Amino acid sequence: MTHITSMLETHPNDTSGLDVQKLAACIEACFQCAQTCTACADACLGEEMVTELRNCIRLNLDCADVCTATGHLLSRRTGSNLATVKAALEACRIACAACAAECEQHAEMHEHCRVCAEACRRCEQACADLLAVIG
Amino acid sequence: MTHITSMLETHPNDTSGLDVQKLAACIEACFQCAQTCTACADACLGEEMVTELRNCIRLNLDCADVCTATGHLLSRRTGSNLATVKAALEACRIACAACAAECEQHAEMHEHCRVCAEACRRCEQACADLLAVIG
Amino acid sequence: MTHITSMLETHPNDTSGLDVQKLAACIEACFQCAQTCTACADACLGEEMVTELRNCIRLNLDCADVCTATGHLLSRRTGSNLATVKAALEACRIACAACAAECEQHAEMHEHCRVCAEACRRCEQACADLLAVIG
Amino acid sequence: MTHITSMLETHPNDTSGLDVQKLAACIEACFQCAQTCTACADACLGEEMVTELRNCIRLNLDCADVCTATGHLLSRRTGSNLATVKAALEACRIACAACAAECEQHAEMHEHCRVCAEACRRCEQACADLLAVIG
Repeated sequence: MTHITSMLETHPNDTSGLDVQKLAACIEACFQCAQTCTACADACLGEEMVTELRNCIRLNLDCADVCTATGHLLSRRTGSNLATVKAALEACRIACAACAAECEQHAEMHEHCRVCAEACRRCEQACADLLAVIG
Repeated sequence: MTHITSMLETHPNDTSGLDVQKLAACIEACFQCAQTCTACADACLGEEMVTELRNCIRLNLDCADVCTATGHLLSRRTGSNLATVKAALEACRIACAACAAECEQHAEMHEHCRVCAEACRRCEQACADLLAVIG
Repeated sequence: MTHITSMLETHPNDTSGLDVQKLAACIEACFQCAQTCTACADACLGEEMVTELRNCIRLNLDCADVCTATGHLLSRRTGSNLATVKAALEACRIACAACAAECEQHAEMHEHCRVCAEACRRCEQACADLLAVIG
Repeated sequence: MTHITSMLETHPNDTSGLDVQKLAACIEACFQCAQTCTACADACLGEEMVTELRNCIRLNLDCADVCTATGHLLSRRTGSNLATVKAALEACRIACAACAAECEQHAEMHEHCRVCAEACRRCEQACADLLAVIG
């Protein structure tokens, strides 16, 4: 997470009133979840039982899109856009929860779904934690 | 919009119970708004008075990110992911409203902000219309 | 394409020495191809014979990613970044050609692949046309 | 990088003939560079001397777009799309080099540009290293 906190701390806006740790944790979780969901969609697509993993692939792709957007929004601090940031965090929390719930159903059979479910749950929690501190 | 409706109508899922017109309109509005906001951020950056357009640039970039993600989500119909789609539409509606309100303040001085505000308002409305029919 | 040309013409950089028509056509083709490929990946995923469409889905998703990035790059005119723009156009041309060739093999059986192949060929050509004028 | 290698190793395609370490390093570098460039564009925008940082912001945004797309492509292994992957890596290498060269000019004055230049150089090298092994 070093590069994320470095960028937060070297931004011209000062960090007073900012929970740098929770923000950095959420940015990191969004980017990790986007990568993991992209990879899980592809791994599911490569499985023999792909027909049973269709909804998993769809939720993976949706989750990757929302996490990518949210990670970008959270990386910006110039000006203010609180209403949008909160709505994006809420959408991200929901996308991660939906994808995690589906991946968990395949976690015993497919190790990539187990790893992905964990990344989704971590990002869901990080979004909830950040929402709690930004009101 | 021809390519968008063509893809909706040739999808293996049938279109009964789907408001193809409102969905296609919203997909088109998301992609147009993403392009317009990306271009408006760049046009603002090129203006002499860029220091007064900082928040406009930031809202433009956030709006482009959310519209891109939402346009991708809406382009998928396999399986179901209603909670995420609704939350993304809500975030998109809010991002477009925030960006439109800012661009409108610069619309008399900067024609690109006037064009962008229109694209944002159109997308805000398209998201609201689609949310109304999908409950 | 109205919103694309409007944004090009209202940018603070003047348009002398710029082939507005070819640039606007390429931006439009990139966004249309990104949308169509995203939808085609999902339509293929929903087909009974999904196992035979795996590579098509993968090429669709890759093409959508590259077209989205290229469409964003082309929407910017502030400063200059010619080497990157040319390399992105070349990557986009190649991604579209690869996806088109695959979709064309399924075009008789799946109408969405036929529509998608056309969008990819149009974008491939638009990238080649723009590369030809920007040297 | 744990989540990236976990996803590569749990994919149904086996990893024989794959340089997992170089691929994982490149995926990680792409996502880190995308995040860092997004943050650097925003930090530059917040600086008093923003008018002198315009080209830096533009190169940052372009680099973030290309790195995001390349990171997604590299996360897929189903089927094959070697020509596109190579062209995307080449575009990513060029985008990172251009952004690094610009950020390095501001590195003494702006710490965020110094951090960003390092992320860009790391990603440029990771792309070159991966291109060298995939031929």
